[in-house]
Amino acid sequence: MKTEKSYRINPGEKVEFNNRVDYCVGTGRMGLALQREYFEQLKLVQKYIGFKHIRGHGLFHDDMAIYRESFNWRTGETTHIEHCFTYLDLVMDSYREVGLKPFLELGFMPGRLASSQNRVFVWGGHTCPPKDYKLWNDLVKDTLRHLIERYGADEAVTYPIEVWNEPNLPGFWEKADMEAYFKLFDETFAAVKEVDPRFKVGGPAVCGGSDELWISKFMDHCEEKNLAIDFVTRHHYTTEQPDRQGHYVYQELMDPEAGFANLKTTRDIIDSHERYKGLPIHITEFNTSYSPDNPIHDTNQNAAFLCHQLSRLGDVNESYSYWTFGDIFEEVGVPFAPFHGGFGLVANGCIPKPTFWSFKFFKDLIGGDCVHRSDDAVIVKDGDVYKGVVWNSSRKREGRELSLEFDLPAEGELCLITKSVDEECCNPLKLWHDMGEPRSLSEEQKELLKSAAYPLVRSERLTASGEAKLCFDVPEFGIRYFELRPAPLTPDRGFDYNRAIRKD
Amino acid sequence: MKTEKSYRINPGEKVEFNNRVDYCVGTGRMGLALQREYFEQLKLVQKYIGFKHIRGHGLFHDDMAIYRESFNWRTGETTHIEHCFTYLDLVMDSYREVGLKPFLELGFMPGRLASSQNRVFVWGGHTCPPKDYKLWNDLVKDTLRHLIERYGADEAVTYPIEVWNEPNLPGFWEKADMEAYFKLFDETFAAVKEVDPRFKVGGPAVCGGSDELWISKFMDHCEEKNLAIDFVTRHHYTTEQPDRQGHYVYQELMDPEAGFANLKTTRDIIDSHERYKGLPIHITEFNTSYSPDNPIHDTNQNAAFLCHQLSRLGDVNESYSYWTFGDIFEEVGVPFAPFHGGFGLVANGCIPKPTFWSFKFFKDLIGGDCVHRSDDAVIVKDGDVYKGVVWNSSRKREGRELSLEFDLPAEGELCLITKSVDEECCNPLKLWHDMGEPRSLSEEQKELLKSAAYPLVRSERLTASGEAKLCFDVPEFGIRYFELRPAPLTPDRGFDYNRAIRKD
Amino acid sequence: MKTEKSYRINPGEKVEFNNRVDYCVGTGRMGLALQREYFEQLKLVQKYIGFKHIRGHGLFHDDMAIYRESFNWRTGETTHIEHCFTYLDLVMDSYREVGLKPFLELGFMPGRLASSQNRVFVWGGHTCPPKDYKLWNDLVKDTLRHLIERYGADEAVTYPIEVWNEPNLPGFWEKADMEAYFKLFDETFAAVKEVDPRFKVGGPAVCGGSDELWISKFMDHCEEKNLAIDFVTRHHYTTEQPDRQGHYVYQELMDPEAGFANLKTTRDIIDSHERYKGLPIHITEFNTSYSPDNPIHDTNQNAAFLCHQLSRLGDVNESYSYWTFGDIFEEVGVPFAPFHGGFGLVANGCIPKPTFWSFKFFKDLIGGDCVHRSDDAVIVKDGDVYKGVVWNSSRKREGRELSLEFDLPAEGELCLITKSVDEECCNPLKLWHDMGEPRSLSEEQKELLKSAAYPLVRSERLTASGEAKLCFDVPEFGIRYFELRPAPLTPDRGFDYNRAIRKD
Amino acid sequence: MKTEKSYRINPGEKVEFNNRVDYCVGTGRMGLALQREYFEQLKLVQKYIGFKHIRGHGLFHDDMAIYRESFNWRTGETTHIEHCFTYLDLVMDSYREVGLKPFLELGFMPGRLASSQNRVFVWGGHTCPPKDYKLWNDLVKDTLRHLIERYGADEAVTYPIEVWNEPNLPGFWEKADMEAYFKLFDETFAAVKEVDPRFKVGGPAVCGGSDELWISKFMDHCEEKNLAIDFVTRHHYTTEQPDRQGHYVYQELMDPEAGFANLKTTRDIIDSHERYKGLPIHITEFNTSYSPDNPIHDTNQNAAFLCHQLSRLGDVNESYSYWTFGDIFEEVGVPFAPFHGGFGLVANGCIPKPTFWSFKFFKDLIGGDCVHRSDDAVIVKDGDVYKGVVWNSSRKREGRELSLEFDLPAEGELCLITKSVDEECCNPLKLWHDMGEPRSLSEEQKELLKSAAYPLVRSERLTASGEAKLCFDVPEFGIRYFELRPAPLTPDRGFDYNRAIRKD
Repeated sequence: MKTEKSYRINPGEKVEFNNRVDYCVGTGRMGLALQREYFEQLKLVQKYIGFKHIRGHGLFHDDMAIYRESFNWRTGETTHIEHCFTYLDLVMDSYREVGLKPFLELGFMPGRLASSQNRVFVWGGHTCPPKDYKLWNDLVKDTLRHLIERYGADEAVTYPIEVWNEPNLPGFWEKADMEAYFKLFDETFAAVKEVDPRFKVGGPAVCGGSDELWISKFMDHCEEKNLAIDFVTRHHYTTEQPDRQGHYVYQELMDPEAGFANLKTTRDIIDSHERYKGLPIHITEFNTSYSPDNPIHDTNQNAAFLCHQLSRLGDVNESYSYWTFGDIFEEVGVPFAPFHGGFGLVANGCIPKPTFWSFKFFKDLIGGDCVHRSDDAVIVKDGDVYKGVVWNSSRKREGRELSLEFDLPAEGELCLITKSVDEECCNPLKLWHDMGEPRSLSEEQKELLKSAAYPLVRSERLTASGEAKLCFDVPEFGIRYFELRPAPLTPDRGFDYNRAIRKD
Repeated sequence: MKTEKSYRINPGEKVEFNNRVDYCVGTGRMGLALQREYFEQLKLVQKYIGFKHIRGHGLFHDDMAIYRESFNWRTGETTHIEHCFTYLDLVMDSYREVGLKPFLELGFMPGRLASSQNRVFVWGGHTCPPKDYKLWNDLVKDTLRHLIERYGADEAVTYPIEVWNEPNLPGFWEKADMEAYFKLFDETFAAVKEVDPRFKVGGPAVCGGSDELWISKFMDHCEEKNLAIDFVTRHHYTTEQPDRQGHYVYQELMDPEAGFANLKTTRDIIDSHERYKGLPIHITEFNTSYSPDNPIHDTNQNAAFLCHQLSRLGDVNESYSYWTFGDIFEEVGVPFAPFHGGFGLVANGCIPKPTFWSFKFFKDLIGGDCVHRSDDAVIVKDGDVYKGVVWNSSRKREGRELSLEFDLPAEGELCLITKSVDEECCNPLKLWHDMGEPRSLSEEQKELLKSAAYPLVRSERLTASGEAKLCFDVPEFGIRYFELRPAPLTPDRGFDYNRAIRKD
Repeated sequence: MKTEKSYRINPGEKVEFNNRVDYCVGTGRMGLALQREYFEQLKLVQKYIGFKHIRGHGLFHDDMAIYRESFNWRTGETTHIEHCFTYLDLVMDSYREVGLKPFLELGFMPGRLASSQNRVFVWGGHTCPPKDYKLWNDLVKDTLRHLIERYGADEAVTYPIEVWNEPNLPGFWEKADMEAYFKLFDETFAAVKEVDPRFKVGGPAVCGGSDELWISKFMDHCEEKNLAIDFVTRHHYTTEQPDRQGHYVYQELMDPEAGFANLKTTRDIIDSHERYKGLPIHITEFNTSYSPDNPIHDTNQNAAFLCHQLSRLGDVNESYSYWTFGDIFEEVGVPFAPFHGGFGLVANGCIPKPTFWSFKFFKDLIGGDCVHRSDDAVIVKDGDVYKGVVWNSSRKREGRELSLEFDLPAEGELCLITKSVDEECCNPLKLWHDMGEPRSLSEEQKELLKSAAYPLVRSERLTASGEAKLCFDVPEFGIRYFELRPAPLTPDRGFDYNRAIRKD
Repeated sequence: MKTEKSYRINPGEKVEFNNRVDYCVGTGRMGLALQREYFEQLKLVQKYIGFKHIRGHGLFHDDMAIYRESFNWRTGETTHIEHCFTYLDLVMDSYREVGLKPFLELGFMPGRLASSQNRVFVWGGHTCPPKDYKLWNDLVKDTLRHLIERYGADEAVTYPIEVWNEPNLPGFWEKADMEAYFKLFDETFAAVKEVDPRFKVGGPAVCGGSDELWISKFMDHCEEKNLAIDFVTRHHYTTEQPDRQGHYVYQELMDPEAGFANLKTTRDIIDSHERYKGLPIHITEFNTSYSPDNPIHDTNQNAAFLCHQLSRLGDVNESYSYWTFGDIFEEVGVPFAPFHGGFGLVANGCIPKPTFWSFKFFKDLIGGDCVHRSDDAVIVKDGDVYKGVVWNSSRKREGRELSLEFDLPAEGELCLITKSVDEECCNPLKLWHDMGEPRSLSEEQKELLKSAAYPLVRSERLTASGEAKLCFDVPEFGIRYFELRPAPLTPDRGFDYNRAIRKD
């Protein structure tokens, strides 16, 4: 099945496109940031993509060991409450080493501050209000003051602050109690602003389902309480109901337009509150599936689908943070195999997945002026260079080959570089499957998988007088990144390429 | 034009194949080994290929600063003769750092020890007998003793020693004076053996043309002088006369069989001397062209042609040393462009050329038992794994596509990994040309060129009962490396690859 | 207070000294080996000291995520039991990267395999028998088989195996139930030997207090059950009762002779069983204090005391493993400050503590023949080089300066290199205290602390005719390492050191 | 011999001190920048000191291979003149990698552009006017244009440009012909400004002796020719006549005041030309001795003497560039030994010499306001931190111990950090001598020498009420760097330092 489309780029045309691909990325929980393999994956991501912020759960989870109570062994009575930043320093220093600032999610509850035994994930995050708001507020304020002391106030206030995660789900917030969340928000908001009013604070970090109700009530609440919140946050996943099979789940992809419409509704709800009209919305999590064991995350289909998402998510949002950068992640337990459908852009073993390249390619568009945006492509012009991403995305395998043609205003000798990511040329999941799906990889196997996980680069020379025609045949679930730039031939004296390759 | 061939590998078949691809590699002159870019290229080569020895000119050239004379400024009279090993230590330590031992070529003449002004190369190597053989012998002995002191005698004696380079050319040895060379050889041989008789010493390091005469006379000479030489050395290039154009030369490739015949003649000459029958022959230099400015070195054609060479050079020789590993090389001057037809396996900027992979692929065959060798392929069996190199080599571009079929004894579920190097998928020269042939590369351009310089990796699963059929379509000047290994599928519980990729 | 001693080394004298300083080192729990800071500290230790084995708790603790049960969410019924080696591979590969093999301690109990809620440490190690011995034995066997598959059987069987840790304490083994431990030992011993009888297996890994009873009963038990155990293990700490103050404990040092006597008793108990006479004893943990929050570990006193220990521990033992190499350690919680009395040879921030150098210096003695051993010094002769460690150790601060004199057989020009570690010149704890005891270190502060944490190196030239006299003034808690080697002066022509430094 | 001095620092006092220690550093010749060992030494220097510019000879020397002539082999006639930037790119990229910009010295003459055989150094720099000024100007312009193309014009114009080196010596400029130099200057000045008038250009780069005459005439010339030169350059060495002995020279140190007076004269000459009054003077080379084989460079005496120089050289000069950063340097030939009196701050083997620390310590003063400057010390105040350098410098060894006392305004708990560099504690030359002066260093010997080449760090706590008294006993040729900063004690709960170290 072949689909052909052709587009003409007009000279001087300027197309709306809010590219915030590099603003933020997600990570499982902060304590994992202590790990070496985690950091290796993060370094790879930052080398190629270079995100600005990172957001994860569990800043106050017990493995970060910040909140500490001592108690009398006989009476059980608490004798001291202290805050320890030994591990926070290690995590923060690691992030800064690779150019990242945190997008601080304040949560979950330290075990000894929890008011109930509501918990989430294999690692048991405490998801309930504090037993004492004064202690919670002290914890928040002391943590921020520590960051200020260590990195300077001007730096620390650039870390956006989000209150809790997905309180609209009972797993993440006891009984999904909205009033209790508003209490948490108000207390936390006040505590943060007391430390430094320049901190940007927002919520309610809801996920789909009850999102409209929550956003709406949250805005009403803020208005009523006269809170000068700085932004609103929500999540965005685009898969249908899961079907579990052993360690894995399988899901259908949703119609992406339904998702965009849902986001637009959020935008409209906020804008309907005069005071908050135009307030930034951060999508603090998004992905196709919300399950860390859905094999779709490792596929080329995911990569192509995400290209489409990346071309649209900036329309009504300030940012959108892919959940997550890497596969060191323990929410449903340590995975049994390197390819296990984890959220990561990078598989364990530091192997980039196809979706890694979707982000890399969109990152490379930053700085250019958009001249084309459609359901198949985004093209920008950066000085005298055209850069574009082209994709063939569909919800199901239909065997569609996409043939795209672009007519661009251009002149003279040009070089077209194309980087391909598709099931044939950049598909480590397939290679791993063909190898027999080994669970423990040797160094040699990791090297082999990496060697199959980078785009295929091709080039050609074009000569244009007024217009250049670019044609891309994109196989199903494939992506093409291209650059078209002026490239007059400047041969060294006596160098004859055709003679060198026996084409004379 | 399509050529089809098919081969059947019989069970238990064992084919003669002396694979010495990793024994030695060449390098311009020793002084260049002080350079940082040189070392980066060498590290890359050693990481992927891992040669054992390295051989270059100019151990005693003035830039190594070993031989030193002080003199009275007024009278010009020599007051002191000293040997300085400061730079030799730097070079040797660098080599050892990447696992290399030297194959010592003793030469050229230090300027102040030269008996004439015969010189070679832009850097002016002195190519004449010493003005005083005692001083030369002292230099040789002191240098070897220094190596023994620094690295231990047991180690030092594993460095083979070759006396001079290409004395059959007047540029390399004044008037190509054979008698004078024999004198040099005798003196040097005696000096070396005096230091430690375990050192292996050989010559005469001749290049083609007058090689038969020289080899023959050299063997006669050794016999007459009763010299227990340890090996014979010669060079091997396979191109016709050069046609110069600006900074470059262009040459036709010779019929490889003519070259092999020439090597056989050398073997026969040696074996005709009863005393020296079977004495090892080291090809201390080989390549297609002997010109460091012939663009063929950067091409896929060169890579395919070299595969054929590598499949044959061990037939009558102990080793064969590719001239050279990298493109830091100054014999005809510093090159004007990163791709300039240098000898190197690696272009400046640490970009592997296609021929790099010919060596890598043959290296990966080591350890296996040969089960097939033809003009198109070598296949070995290593335990239960088949490894093979397949190539499509020709002297001129004829548009020949080669279709090869192999029937191999095999059983069960298998994984076939193929690595492709051809003009389409692994051709940095083409990319560089398409970019406009830039002479100064930015870091981004280097990264781009590297990304187009690694093999394309593909895989598939096979099921065999008794026999597996492997088919390779190899485009002109293309190479395929493959591994076929048992790979029973071991899916984790619930993991369904077909479902993951929507093939269900 | 000054103490003077003098010793004469006789030519040809050979003194008993079993130096096993580098055989093994301890580490908190295996899951911590995933951490980046942990690995940086381990790299430092291996670069300077180079241990061969590493032993820690918690191989089967839940954070290693090896033992996995799935269950029906409704009925709670277990549906699958699986073993996952994802994290074990990461840990093992890290160890191998720095040249370490594990000394495998089999324990603690996976949570879902635990037969009770007996737990230890802040991180809650399960310390009770398995709920089902078949499941435990399967876990042991599957883990060993995985190691064999990944690293080869010949390698894996070189990992010694110890059954559990300190079962003579109720915190580590429910009710310190000896019979229950013997049951665990027998089952585990049989399981291991079933996988490969070449594995070396031992126990009972007891700590002081009830050690004599336990060792004695354990030997009786093995004899009765006819178990061909490969070695016996115990621990060795040398401090008195702790006095707690806030986050810290303070303890007096024991008389070391009492400790050595205790070890001798263990040796005697074993040797009294004819069958096990001479069986190797591994001290699988030792240190001064057994508390990870005793500031003594960071002091120079600890370093000097340990020198004395290292000079004696090999007398009746096969090995002795310092508990622990680094300060990433969570048994009593994440520490609040970089210097917190942790067990480590290295403080957080990769700062070597004085005791680090005790190990480094004893490591440097390996290979030499002992010519002197006293309560103040060990000296070995390695070829024509003398190497020695000299220390001034005492249990309390008494202001004792130790002045030592050695007369050694020597001849000619010599160079004496001395490396000093004492409170004045190599004392990062003092510097940190003087800085105000900062809890969060900046990079600059870490660099400063490191710069105060390396030995002071001094040198002098001696000329001996028959005998050399070496004098060391060692301040309280100080250590000196020295090397005395032949060093004839070989000045370059014209170089005059005295003139250079204006001493002419 | 003991000298005691005491100084009082008054609150609010502000002392003149122009600290330009990090503006520029020297390097032998640009071609050496291709070397690996050179780069390792440069990295070390940049890590600790961090210079901004680097200046060396030989940009146009033949080993940089920029200027290239092709010629007809039969007639000798030049057929092509080309410029090749392959090596310049490698050098420039290396410099930029460690944060350095060049201070471009335009020279020497390419061999084929030389008008005579006047040459300098073992490596034969051509030191004569060009045979054709058009070709020279083209070379200059093309080189600058290449830098602009590669690094951008805004960057390139920040590279100061100096015309030639020491034309007042016949070795460096044929016959020291002043008129010929002025011609070169005028031509070059015009050529540079034609490329971009923003380039800063100066001369005449003279060394002592005839400097006053040259500077005076040069200023007259510029005035007469109406040249808007941007700065004036000269050199500054402070040793008396050399006495040669074998490979080495020995010299007495000059009275430093004589040198400063000489610099003042230069300042006055320039200022006497109204047009050029206040024009910046760059000392583009300085050191004690101008000989690369004077052992003084490796001594502590040199380090102390240089501290004094660094405290004064900014008085009338814009900058002063130490000649040279490292010991890869070939002007009088490759050295025979690692310590050979080379100019470098770093000895071969990456061993910092004492003088390295003079620069490091003065660098650390940057940013503070000077509160004290004398012949013994410089102290600055940076926020609430005092930083100072104290030295004991003398021209001959006199056995003087210097005891310095400073009374500084201060309050509260303070920490005093002292870093010592003197003959006892930081003197790799002495260690090397004691080792027997080995010429080839093993890795172990290099490590040992490095371990004796870093400052000794000590600390103490002070309590001040209004004033703190700092006392330094500085042995002959010793240096002390100190920092005094507020350091209130913040012990963790229960941590008692005195109890930890048994001082209770």
